[in-house]
Amino acid sequence: MARIAVDMDEVMADALGEHICRYNGLFGTQLSREHVVGGTLHDAVPPEHRAAAQQLVHSHDFFASLKVMPDAREVLLNLSKRHEIFITTAAMEVPESFQAKYDWLLEHFPFISPMNFVFCGDKSVVLADYLIDDNARHFARFKGKGILFDAPHNRHVEGFCRVHNWREIDDLFADMRALCAV
Amino acid sequence: MARIAVDMDEVMADALGEHICRYNGLFGTQLSREHVVGGTLHDAVPPEHRAAAQQLVHSHDFFASLKVMPDAREVLLNLSKRHEIFITTAAMEVPESFQAKYDWLLEHFPFISPMNFVFCGDKSVVLADYLIDDNARHFARFKGKGILFDAPHNRHVEGFCRVHNWREIDDLFADMRALCAV
Repeated sequence: MARIAVDMDEVMADALGEHICRYNGLFGTQLSREHVVGGTLHDAVPPEHRAAAQQLVHSHDFFASLKVMPDAREVLLNLSKRHEIFITTAAMEVPESFQAKYDWLLEHFPFISPMNFVFCGDKSVVLADYLIDDNARHFARFKGKGILFDAPHNRHVEGFCRVHNWREIDDLFADMRALCAV
Repeated sequence: MARIAVDMDEVMADALGEHICRYNGLFGTQLSREHVVGGTLHDAVPPEHRAAAQQLVHSHDFFASLKVMPDAREVLLNLSKRHEIFITTAAMEVPESFQAKYDWLLEHFPFISPMNFVFCGDKSVVLADYLIDDNARHFARFKGKGILFDAPHNRHVEGFCRVHNWREIDDLFADMRALCAV
C-alpha cells in the first residue's frame, strides 16, 4: 500500500475549462485550451481583460461548478481499494473556496473520507509516497515522487514523470515496475 | 532549523474556555475547567444538555471569538525566527470553521504565512519534526516527535513529553539537549 496525494484543480477538477467558459461568456470571445498552452489564462488574454478574468475565479459559485476530470472518479475509487488517498489542494491561495471545495469533494468523491482532505499552501508539509499535481513547483521540496498531470500551462515543463489522463495513472499504479521507474 | 507543526484549538486558541463560557451563559451554570479534567465538556455536563452544548461549537461566531492562549503569540514569533512553523488544525471535523480559523490566524498571527496553514483531519499526513498538540491520538502515526500540550481532557494521558504552557515550549526549543530527550 502506498500513500498517494492528489491535487484538485486541473487534476480532479476541470478549473481551466470553467475559467475559459466564463471568460468567453463575459467577453464574447472564443478562447480555447490551445490558446493557453505554455502559460496561464492570465497570459493568454489582453491586458485590459486580466483583472476581470482573475476575478472570475473568486466568484461565489466557481469551485462548486467544476466538472470532474474524465475517469478521475473511477480510477480514484479503484486506487482507494489498494492505496491510501489524500486530497491535497493549495486552497490557502483562494480562501473563499474552502467550503465549495469541501462540498465538491463530498459530492463527487464520497468514498474518500474528509479526514483525508488537506487544504494547504506549501505542499512540502505533505507526507506521501506520490504527489499527483499539475504544478511542478510543488515537487521541489516534496519528499516523495512527483507525478506531473498534463495541463496547458505545464506543457513545456520537463524533468518529471508526466501523465496525460486518469487512465494513465491507473496503468501506472497497476504496473509496479513502471511506478518504480518514476 | 526544525519544522514545528502546531495545533490550534487548546494550543494556540482557548476553545475550551469559550465553550465553557457559552455553556454557562446558556444554562446559568458554574462549570469550570476543573470539572472537565480527564474528559471533555460533553462528559462533564448532564446528558440532557449535551446536544445543545455540542451545538455551541458549531455556532457562526464560535471560532472567531477564541482568545489567544497566554504567550502563544510571543513564543511563536520567537520560534519563527529560527524554525519553520506550520499550523496544522483538524478543521475537517468542523467544516463551517474554515473561514473563521483562517481569519483568526491572520488577525492574531500575522507573521505566519497562510501558505503554512494546513486544514486537515488525519494528521499522519503532516511532515514535520515536531507536532505540538493536545490530542495524543495524532501522535500515533506521526513520523516526528509529539509534544503534548496540557489540557483538562488529556490530564491522565501518559507516555508523551508534556508542556503546560507556551513558556515551557520556548524553554524546550531553547535547550537542544532537552529537546533531544523528548
